[in-house]
Amino acid sequence: MANRVGVWIIGGLGNVSLCTILGARAAARGLTGKAAMVTELPEFRSLPLVPVGDLVFGGHEIRHSDVYTEAVQYQKLNGVPSRELVDTLKPDLAKVSQELRDGLLLNCGKPVAALANGRWSKGNKRELSLSEAVRAIQNDLASFVKRNGLRDLVVVNLASCEQPVDLKAMGSLKALEEAIRKNRRELLSASVLYAYAAIDAGHPYVNFTASLGSSVPAIEELALARGVPHMGKDAKTGETLLKTTLAPMFYMRNLNVLSWEGHNILGNRDGMVLDDPENAKLKLADKKGVLESILKNTDRFHTRVRIDYVPSMQDWKTAWNHIHFEGFLGTKMTMQVLWQGCDSMLAAPLVIDLIRFAELAHRTGFAGPMKHLGCFFKNPLGAKQHNMFTQFRRLVKYAARLAAVPAE
Amino acid sequence: MANRVGVWIIGGLGNVSLCTILGARAAARGLTGKAAMVTELPEFRSLPLVPVGDLVFGGHEIRHSDVYTEAVQYQKLNGVPSRELVDTLKPDLAKVSQELRDGLLLNCGKPVAALANGRWSKGNKRELSLSEAVRAIQNDLASFVKRNGLRDLVVVNLASCEQPVDLKAMGSLKALEEAIRKNRRELLSASVLYAYAAIDAGHPYVNFTASLGSSVPAIEELALARGVPHMGKDAKTGETLLKTTLAPMFYMRNLNVLSWEGHNILGNRDGMVLDDPENAKLKLADKKGVLESILKNTDRFHTRVRIDYVPSMQDWKTAWNHIHFEGFLGTKMTMQVLWQGCDSMLAAPLVIDLIRFAELAHRTGFAGPMKHLGCFFKNPLGAKQHNMFTQFRRLVKYAARLAAVPAE
Amino acid sequence: MANRVGVWIIGGLGNVSLCTILGARAAARGLTGKAAMVTELPEFRSLPLVPVGDLVFGGHEIRHSDVYTEAVQYQKLNGVPSRELVDTLKPDLAKVSQELRDGLLLNCGKPVAALANGRWSKGNKRELSLSEAVRAIQNDLASFVKRNGLRDLVVVNLASCEQPVDLKAMGSLKALEEAIRKNRRELLSASVLYAYAAIDAGHPYVNFTASLGSSVPAIEELALARGVPHMGKDAKTGETLLKTTLAPMFYMRNLNVLSWEGHNILGNRDGMVLDDPENAKLKLADKKGVLESILKNTDRFHTRVRIDYVPSMQDWKTAWNHIHFEGFLGTKMTMQVLWQGCDSMLAAPLVIDLIRFAELAHRTGFAGPMKHLGCFFKNPLGAKQHNMFTQFRRLVKYAARLAAVPAE
Amino acid sequence: MANRVGVWIIGGLGNVSLCTILGARAAARGLTGKAAMVTELPEFRSLPLVPVGDLVFGGHEIRHSDVYTEAVQYQKLNGVPSRELVDTLKPDLAKVSQELRDGLLLNCGKPVAALANGRWSKGNKRELSLSEAVRAIQNDLASFVKRNGLRDLVVVNLASCEQPVDLKAMGSLKALEEAIRKNRRELLSASVLYAYAAIDAGHPYVNFTASLGSSVPAIEELALARGVPHMGKDAKTGETLLKTTLAPMFYMRNLNVLSWEGHNILGNRDGMVLDDPENAKLKLADKKGVLESILKNTDRFHTRVRIDYVPSMQDWKTAWNHIHFEGFLGTKMTMQVLWQGCDSMLAAPLVIDLIRFAELAHRTGFAGPMKHLGCFFKNPLGAKQHNMFTQFRRLVKYAARLAAVPAE
Repeated sequence: MANRVGVWIIGGLGNVSLCTILGARAAARGLTGKAAMVTELPEFRSLPLVPVGDLVFGGHEIRHSDVYTEAVQYQKLNGVPSRELVDTLKPDLAKVSQELRDGLLLNCGKPVAALANGRWSKGNKRELSLSEAVRAIQNDLASFVKRNGLRDLVVVNLASCEQPVDLKAMGSLKALEEAIRKNRRELLSASVLYAYAAIDAGHPYVNFTASLGSSVPAIEELALARGVPHMGKDAKTGETLLKTTLAPMFYMRNLNVLSWEGHNILGNRDGMVLDDPENAKLKLADKKGVLESILKNTDRFHTRVRIDYVPSMQDWKTAWNHIHFEGFLGTKMTMQVLWQGCDSMLAAPLVIDLIRFAELAHRTGFAGPMKHLGCFFKNPLGAKQHNMFTQFRRLVKYAARLAAVPAE
Repeated sequence: MANRVGVWIIGGLGNVSLCTILGARAAARGLTGKAAMVTELPEFRSLPLVPVGDLVFGGHEIRHSDVYTEAVQYQKLNGVPSRELVDTLKPDLAKVSQELRDGLLLNCGKPVAALANGRWSKGNKRELSLSEAVRAIQNDLASFVKRNGLRDLVVVNLASCEQPVDLKAMGSLKALEEAIRKNRRELLSASVLYAYAAIDAGHPYVNFTASLGSSVPAIEELALARGVPHMGKDAKTGETLLKTTLAPMFYMRNLNVLSWEGHNILGNRDGMVLDDPENAKLKLADKKGVLESILKNTDRFHTRVRIDYVPSMQDWKTAWNHIHFEGFLGTKMTMQVLWQGCDSMLAAPLVIDLIRFAELAHRTGFAGPMKHLGCFFKNPLGAKQHNMFTQFRRLVKYAARLAAVPAE
Repeated sequence: MANRVGVWIIGGLGNVSLCTILGARAAARGLTGKAAMVTELPEFRSLPLVPVGDLVFGGHEIRHSDVYTEAVQYQKLNGVPSRELVDTLKPDLAKVSQELRDGLLLNCGKPVAALANGRWSKGNKRELSLSEAVRAIQNDLASFVKRNGLRDLVVVNLASCEQPVDLKAMGSLKALEEAIRKNRRELLSASVLYAYAAIDAGHPYVNFTASLGSSVPAIEELALARGVPHMGKDAKTGETLLKTTLAPMFYMRNLNVLSWEGHNILGNRDGMVLDDPENAKLKLADKKGVLESILKNTDRFHTRVRIDYVPSMQDWKTAWNHIHFEGFLGTKMTMQVLWQGCDSMLAAPLVIDLIRFAELAHRTGFAGPMKHLGCFFKNPLGAKQHNMFTQFRRLVKYAARLAAVPAE
Repeated sequence: MANRVGVWIIGGLGNVSLCTILGARAAARGLTGKAAMVTELPEFRSLPLVPVGDLVFGGHEIRHSDVYTEAVQYQKLNGVPSRELVDTLKPDLAKVSQELRDGLLLNCGKPVAALANGRWSKGNKRELSLSEAVRAIQNDLASFVKRNGLRDLVVVNLASCEQPVDLKAMGSLKALEEAIRKNRRELLSASVLYAYAAIDAGHPYVNFTASLGSSVPAIEELALARGVPHMGKDAKTGETLLKTTLAPMFYMRNLNVLSWEGHNILGNRDGMVLDDPENAKLKLADKKGVLESILKNTDRFHTRVRIDYVPSMQDWKTAWNHIHFEGFLGTKMTMQVLWQGCDSMLAAPLVIDLIRFAELAHRTGFAGPMKHLGCFFKNPLGAKQHNMFTQFRRLVKYAARLAAVPAE
């Protein structure tokens, strides 16, 4: 029991969370291979990472349902994983359902608020002051740890992307704490408040989404003060992973990319929320910068990313990338990439990887942004390199260095 | 004049040769940008590479025509480069035409022999013994050097892909020289004989094609004996470039690639020759191995490469890559890549890069296979790493090391 | 009971058969919509077609297994239909399993013979003379009819594609009957023998595959003599459906199609069998002719169809079509189509449609090739029009004419 | 001379106009084949259409330049047609340049107004009252006819797409004429004013664009009153042509289309203008309706069309169509179509077709909307059928009927 590590998911009934929990429990029970987990590559085999079977899940959620019901629904809509697997894991999912608590709605935008579905009249955190909300979150975390006898707890943000807010009130820890104290709800995002609560309580924090989370100066300051590792933001799961792998090819051949257009269609809740232009802003911003930084020669470069909600696609995101480039003697050529991936199935194994790396970092005394995890993010905190290979080499070097040190 | 460097092209009127000559001369006259030349990247700026304007072109060719006529025809069929450019360079092309000599037909397969078109009855090298052929080639090279006052000469093989021959007679320098002496025509390929003649005469040699060239032990031995740098084989211009860039992405995310199918269609002379299954063998072999070496986990892996001749495509090669992979919880997903490139325009700038790197290597006393040039080849001699990034880093390190040493 | 119509499937455990049976029973029980059945379009609503729920299934099969086991396996490999559906239909599938009889192996090629898997040593029809085999087949049909009290029986060929045989012995009914009498096994295909047996016994026959079936003169003669409707060959389910819809567009705009290349990859048993070039011959022949007949202006036209076996794809066939065409002022343009369909799910509803149309034709006294069903076939017997729209209009007219006549 | 027919193009220096003029003159001089002209199909061979060589071009244009200069520029940017062709036709283009007159700016939206480029201070029609503008246009047409001894004149609108205006003032001829008389500039679009002027003067009118043109009741009334044929709107050149050909396939197989997403990228002036959401409105509206009318069963149907401006593409429009459909047993499948066409080269031959058909209609006494030309338009006036095959059959029948009547 003493070896168990908690995972607290903000957005506990979202698709990514469901796939994470299903995958972790399937792996724990030996029902699936370890494909798609980076931590299972030979390069990381000698690291003393927490076994997947030792992870215990709980979380905050704004909708009222349970993990099994949602997993069955997910399976019906998307065809994966097999129905047999979902049914086999029913008891495990039931345990997680018991660890779900009401989530916090704060400046999350209309589409997210709509999901909450009017069931929030009693016991939810909307009516709490910000200070009370922080305390309530911390109580939820503490009782989860105690109830399950956990030796550590990692908090992961998997909630839908928020709308941008002014950053002023988050420019320093002092400003942030003042805003909380004075209950200035209009100045803060839920993701920042969660990050504050988690890190203040000494828990490693990972922001898997494009929301602000721990990326603001106030939280960076707090993490160093509390000696807590954290990382984000916006996991690199599909199209951006492709871009940061493929763009270097054009650079290494000195081919002049004229335009790179990306059209994404998807039909999950994430897609529905991003259909609101305000909620899409942070996400599109994260997606856009990466190419310029790799291609360099971008005088005439044009790029645009579109994310369109197409209900029938459900969680199967399809991306068309059209790359127009100029080669020798001004010859214009074209590459097109069609990516058809199951969005949450691409994301979920990386959530597990990040939990394992964050827990390890905490255990080995690391504090602040885990820059060695840059290869997992579209907008990696403190590590502006986007080239996927350079990022991966950094992670491999980190692992090699750590493996050379005797584990505690 | 004393700074001029010769480039002797085997296959002087082929599409790649035409684009190389057009591009080099256009660059020399400032008529085009330097896109697509790797040697023009910032990473290689401090290397004392020969200026493109100092290259002087000549070559062997089995068809009877001239560079301008062929370039006009190429432009008509492919739409690139602009007709104005071809016309502006007419005098430069005329000079190169004067430096073309009759090429050698030896076990090249039916489609290549057919190109020679019956014009070979007089003065060609078919009727020479192998020893005479070697001497004739070396005489062509020597008189080119003398006539143009060249300080060095690089020989480049751009001829159509040959059919496989038994490697026995090329297993050692001794065996090869005996086969030449005894005029055992059936045991050798033209590409090997050219490589022998070039390297024996002290000229750096680059095999841009899938033919054997300098890849056999006999020639490797000779190159070390004569202190000559050489490299090959089969330049990585399009689909394989893509594969060796993209496959690492699947590895780095631990995604299990189940199948990777590549269908190429093209309509140039290269495509016509490869339509003969015998001539396609060496090429397909080079294309096939790269994926396994990068993906590693390939128990269930299936791959096939097809190259189909479609006349209307001319030099515009289109490749469909269908990649089927398994992610988390056994979820199968798909990526498809459509690459539409002008085959020879992708190849030509790399020819210039390789000439410049080979000349530099010779000048700095390097002998044997130039393993630092692995990023240019599908099947790099002596450097079995195929990951494009690892290959490129090796080249960058080579450049950095060399740049640190004062140039001679 | 008196209204029930039998369906006898040659290849009863193949994927298409499984999906046909699952779909028919699901429709009978109201568990699924009627999408993908042409007979359910408004244009055919007034026809007195047999209700899907009145179809009773049985068949010949060379492998030993049962429908439920194979359906479960199909579901696991392909993700469709839902596992719940397969389980719900378990009793229905069990009944069909009881109506399976040993199939006939005759000049079917190595890959098909291999499927029979050595289990054929007892009771199979390999050791029967041809005359005995015909009688055995007819006995199977007769006892199926009697046992189930069927008012009619339609025989459908869904078995894997055979290798080509010389057509001589099938040039007339006399020649065919002589070959059967003299037991000239080397001269006949199983599909022809089945067609002979079925039609001779007075049962409508549909050849869904590229095998010869009823397409030879001998059988056409027999069908007229016995007053039996039949049709084939090679159902138009995916890529050819697309071609015969899209090619007219190029014709109607007077765009000059230069090349149309089709690459198909699939991983089902059909794909495995077609991986043998001999077994692919008839299929490729059927696929090839259609374009020329629609495009007309095809002096410079190039086309090639490839079907490659890629195990991981299972029943999900993906086709890349690359269409290169010349427009105004000689401008070359491109259209590419990527079709990702579940092969047997595309085929199965058409099987049901053809059964219903064949039964209706028989009931209304129609004999010989059902030319009005041309829109269902790549190589429609007696109806060489391939334009999908013209074919469909013909079917609609047939229905309108028939609907105007009072049903018997 | 008496047989010559005038073509007056609104938007005379736009890409479509350039390609139309180049193509017509190249055909007249026998420099090109007749590919892409519908009127050259065998079905229309017996119609007494005006020979392409008898067409004389002139037009209105808001930019100041000449046809040759613009054609050279077009060729440089797009690679087609060959530079040689443009140079050969230089004298013909010069003659057309002399027939260009200043165009009219009226509620055309910012991007179009910007093209006028400040050169409009003198002699343009912006400062004329609406009545004066109509007279000025009619004077331009009349003097063109007289100067060139034309037996008829067809007016074609090829100008950039306008922004929507309120339709009230165009609801009847009386309302429109009152708005003109009272100079209510804010109530009218230039395209309507041009249509009014042309038809009022007795000239057949074709609206190739998505602007209103002759589609409003006021103009329909006028055309009948003056006995003039007209047609529009929004030519079906690429993506919509594809949709109206392909959608029937899904219908004919009873496949349930769940979503059809179209993403277009292009870099020509049309693309630049459509980048303004206001200018894109009419175009997107025309594109959207067609699918519903063909697919019928569209309860759950989702569709969206995006047109994005990507400068490097120039006139090469690329469209990605992602079609998600449900087949048998609820199986979801996908078709993707990538269309890479040269936008104006697809449009130009249809302009010539429409001119020839309109002139013939006028000559044979036809008045009002030419519904038989529905196959040429996204939003055909008075003929709401969108199925490309049905539309084409209607045109063929029209031709057959007309050919049966002895020509006047």
